Amino acid sequence: MRIGIVGGGAIGLLVYGYLSQIFPTTIYVRRPEQRDKLLKEGLTVANGPGFIRDVHVALSESAWDEDLIILAVKQPDLPTLLAAHPKAAVSDQTLLFLQNGAGHLDLLEDLHYEHLFIGLVEHGAEKTSDTTVIHKGVGTIKIALIKGDRQRVAPLLANEAFPMTFVSDWRKALDEKLLVNAIINPLTALYGIKNGELLSNVHFKRAMRTVFDEIMPFLTPPNPSKAWEHVVGVCQKTSENHSSMLQDLEAGRMTEVGAILGPILKRAEARSVHLPVVRFLYESIKAKEHMRSAQC
Amino acid sequence: MRIGIVGGGAIGLLVYGYLSQIFPTTIYVRRPEQRDKLLKEGLTVANGPGFIRDVHVALSESAWDEDLIILAVKQPDLPTLLAAHPKAAVSDQTLLFLQNGAGHLDLLEDLHYEHLFIGLVEHGAEKTSDTTVIHKGVGTIKIALIKGDRQRVAPLLANEAFPMTFVSDWRKALDEKLLVNAIINPLTALYGIKNGELLSNVHFKRAMRTVFDEIMPFLTPPNPSKAWEHVVGVCQKTSENHSSMLQDLEAGRMTEVGAILGPILKRAEARSVHLPVVRFLYESIKAKEHMRSAQC
Repeated sequence: MRIGIVGGGAIGLLVYGYLSQIFPTTIYVRRPEQRDKLLKEGLTVANGPGFIRDVHVALSESAWDEDLIILAVKQPDLPTLLAAHPKAAVSDQTLLFLQNGAGHLDLLEDLHYEHLFIGLVEHGAEKTSDTTVIHKGVGTIKIALIKGDRQRVAPLLANEAFPMTFVSDWRKALDEKLLVNAIINPLTALYGIKNGELLSNVHFKRAMRTVFDEIMPFLTPPNPSKAWEHVVGVCQKTSENHSSMLQDLEAGRMTEVGAILGPILKRAEARSVHLPVVRFLYESIKAKEHMRSAQC
Repeated sequence: MRIGIVGGGAIGLLVYGYLSQIFPTTIYVRRPEQRDKLLKEGLTVANGPGFIRDVHVALSESAWDEDLIILAVKQPDLPTLLAAHPKAAVSDQTLLFLQNGAGHLDLLEDLHYEHLFIGLVEHGAEKTSDTTVIHKGVGTIKIALIKGDRQRVAPLLANEAFPMTFVSDWRKALDEKLLVNAIINPLTALYGIKNGELLSNVHFKRAMRTVFDEIMPFLTPPNPSKAWEHVVGVCQKTSENHSSMLQDLEAGRMTEVGAILGPILKRAEARSVHLPVVRFLYESIKAKEHMRSAQC
């Protein structure tokens, strides 16, 4: 199985670093600068495979011709990318989407691909340069079938170096991920703290719990009674990690707050329920985005 | 009229700087180090009276024997101070309280003083050292009578260098101040921004408005229909100011969040109303307090 990974961010680099050890793999990046750097300097995955000299890299605008394409770009970048690659380039080509949140699911309906999967990344990863990523929290990727033949991802599941697991109910799995993202990402970004610091005092925990209580009625995690423990567990496992939303704010980039909190606010609106703290968090992160980008 | 000012923080130094130009004035400070520095180096009020060589300074634990005592300490420091000065030291001695919030009003009932006033400070002031304060936003001090003879503060009202005005309904005036404090202080402290930046984009304004809408039903400002404009106006007038709560957090000190948001949460509880965003703000600031003090 040949694999193409689209996206040169923290997750794209991390996944390439591991999978290229096992499969013939190409990474597609948006910027020619990053392509050139990867060609010249190689890729370093700290706390992982280490230094990789020969990186197979191409620009994401070019044709994707591998059997399995893993989309590791941010959700707002998907529409343009998919418009440029509207149908399978090779027979039985499979797409695996690794986006946070649930904002991209509507897009999938219009795609002319037979095999579609989503994957929920539970790793902590921090990109420190165009050619370096740090594997900060070792987790798993949960893969779920949207449509097509689930056997298409079997080779991924069988690899030992970078564990992936198959989950049957993707809506529940997605909601579990959304729950974690909706709490940890905005709060760590708002407070400017590492994931683990959310557990460092009773007031942060209460703030977390407030968000949890507000969004839980609108989510269906696989195990509702253990959902709170799961969130706390992810904080612990990724305690040294700076969440992607915090990294985005600090780098003056747009965040994924719309993709993460947007679907929850929409579900609540559909039931005419106001979520004051989630709304407040959403506005706070958007405000900080505007402030940072105004400074840059 | 002889004046004693208790407290060597931003407001105490500011008020001493102005009033000592007009009245025989003494400033009482808690720490011997600050007393010694003021004696040796004098006081500088930037954007105001400038350098003052001879500062009349004593320790706040000593007897207060002036006609008017202005209490410019933080609300949590009041109980100890008042326990040490339970009754008037000279005939007709008057107390004027300049604390933020409304948390100290219960304390006043047990005091053996005939004349009690509260003052609402609408100045921006930033203490940069034990002997330096910057007058960042020029406003006024609104004075209200709690009990006794209102003529006792007449000399203050007549001064031109540092305007003060008399307001008749202290509950309304206090609520107006509380409204401003409850919005500007926690939000600027949470976001780490200057007061004026709250107006810099639509998302910050929405976050402000959320807090405003949540607390307004529990306050009685003098002019409810213009209350929002008033809050925005204070942000504009003090746009370059770092709020006292932000300054406290950055210096690793406890904040006045309990004195400011506590009374509002209590009033809502008494009516069995949950204020999710105010509660979230309260926990967020308390969390940041703990985090900062753990770092120091």
